[in-house]
Amino acid sequence: MTLMEIATCYVPGSIGNFGPGLDVLGAATTGGGDSVTATWHESPGVHVLDPGHPDLPRDADRHASAIAAAAIIRTASAAGVRLPRRGIALTVRKGLPLSGGQGGSAASAVAGAVATNTLLGSPCDRNAIILAALESESQVAGRHLDNIAPSLLGGICLVRSVDPLDIVQLPVPARLRVVLAHPAQELRTADSRAVLPAQVDRSRVIRQMANVAAIVAALYSDDLLLLGRAMDDQLAEPARSPLIPGFAAAKAAALEAGALGASISGAGPTMFAVCDSDVGAQRVSHAVRAAYEGLGVVAAVRVARIDTHGARIERSPVGAG
Amino acid sequence: MTLMEIATCYVPGSIGNFGPGLDVLGAATTGGGDSVTATWHESPGVHVLDPGHPDLPRDADRHASAIAAAAIIRTASAAGVRLPRRGIALTVRKGLPLSGGQGGSAASAVAGAVATNTLLGSPCDRNAIILAALESESQVAGRHLDNIAPSLLGGICLVRSVDPLDIVQLPVPARLRVVLAHPAQELRTADSRAVLPAQVDRSRVIRQMANVAAIVAALYSDDLLLLGRAMDDQLAEPARSPLIPGFAAAKAAALEAGALGASISGAGPTMFAVCDSDVGAQRVSHAVRAAYEGLGVVAAVRVARIDTHGARIERSPVGAG
Repeated sequence: MTLMEIATCYVPGSIGNFGPGLDVLGAATTGGGDSVTATWHESPGVHVLDPGHPDLPRDADRHASAIAAAAIIRTASAAGVRLPRRGIALTVRKGLPLSGGQGGSAASAVAGAVATNTLLGSPCDRNAIILAALESESQVAGRHLDNIAPSLLGGICLVRSVDPLDIVQLPVPARLRVVLAHPAQELRTADSRAVLPAQVDRSRVIRQMANVAAIVAALYSDDLLLLGRAMDDQLAEPARSPLIPGFAAAKAAALEAGALGASISGAGPTMFAVCDSDVGAQRVSHAVRAAYEGLGVVAAVRVARIDTHGARIERSPVGAG
Repeated sequence: MTLMEIATCYVPGSIGNFGPGLDVLGAATTGGGDSVTATWHESPGVHVLDPGHPDLPRDADRHASAIAAAAIIRTASAAGVRLPRRGIALTVRKGLPLSGGQGGSAASAVAGAVATNTLLGSPCDRNAIILAALESESQVAGRHLDNIAPSLLGGICLVRSVDPLDIVQLPVPARLRVVLAHPAQELRTADSRAVLPAQVDRSRVIRQMANVAAIVAALYSDDLLLLGRAMDDQLAEPARSPLIPGFAAAKAAALEAGALGASISGAGPTMFAVCDSDVGAQRVSHAVRAAYEGLGVVAAVRVARIDTHGARIERSPVGAG
């Protein structure tokens, strides 16, 4: 393995809890992501040179990127990889909102893990990177992979199982567009998870699992109308929508403007709507913006595609041993 | 529309509750089915000439085939179809066990509906036939379509929604084989439904919906190993297996002999195991038979494929007006 002097990794944001797929389905999105640059540091351990946002901790034990970076170092050491007696310094650039429901914590964790792994000469494989990011996500946002998997791998992912790791990459219909609307509200992921029901009625379970399965069928068969019909979340959306002022009106406006389906992205407050063309997505984005404006809520609304690349190294100069 | 003098419909049995897919996933199976012959009768109404089994009712209000036949007549009349002032007589041949979990009640209902519809000159479409069979199944076995859909349409079906009707036909991997083992025990569907939990823990819901979705992904991607891993039912199987002596041992024997997965077929007591070759399925069938024999349980064990044809008219002579 060849050590690098510097490695920067860009990781796209993602829609976790894609429709009914709480903790199970996630989709990487274009147009926004986090970057982490890893370099060597004279002191051992992981150091956060720039946390990426004034509200994020400089403490390496609490920053998503640094927790994942430390997990990579630990995994590599445990596997017998000889590492230099130096530390690692991280510089984070946040392109994703904090606590927005756009997969920001997962993107930072994956970027920290991949940048560090690259700096070390890539001793860790895909699963080790996922587990390092999961260690971070568990501390920051909850133990789930529906953001981590698509952020790392790209596309739309089905997390069949976390333990053991079992992830299926699903096909991405070429016409699929998503509208992301982020109202100016911070919703702590912990608060958003606290309202989820501990128990679910059997009839609702059956409906929920049928819709998650139908999303998978829709993606394989390129049937965006079915995808829209299956965007029916009976589990998280009814519990979380009361925490998000304007969500119900924005969703109604999206459907009225022709969106095939809409729901809460991740833990919210971002709303996402599914469309089958650029023109349709533009129309939906205007309608959603107007709906939020009508309620006096400032919202950042954008049209995105599914990011099929996932995490990528942006700059990785010739290695030096 | 041309009236027929006689119509016979054969309908294959099916595995309902395919793995984790309670009420949602079903697979039609070769090698066993029910047939219904419909002819005209001098008295109005539906008449059961032969119920198909000594334990089945001759009462047309209680026989699965006759309930569905009556629903077809009612639907056709309501749609303005002019029907002759004669009744319909049904002769049923049961190839499927009663209360076995092999979709016998659904097959009889579909056969009664299709034979009657054919006799009437086919006034009802696919959805009307499904709803007629559902009316029967609701009275006899519960309001679900995971047996009716594959029995009528063939293959493996995902029931996204009963109301409104939304059914997706899934691809059938060419190598897929199932071993069906029916121990000599009658298990009333009502008893088997009564033990299902009313509420399900959220963590279990997530696991269940991930596995149902993974089955769909496995079928589209022809990944039988994934299909096997996803055959993980946390909802019905733990509740029902105590009602089925020998199930646990038979399942263990199937997996030990190389089955990719195994679970309860429909409401039981039939066990099904999933295999990826004829040779493998034969090996599993021997192991399962031996396991039941070791417990002193007589079991009918057979190897089946997925029936991709569904309901078919077997004899439909030239119509007479």
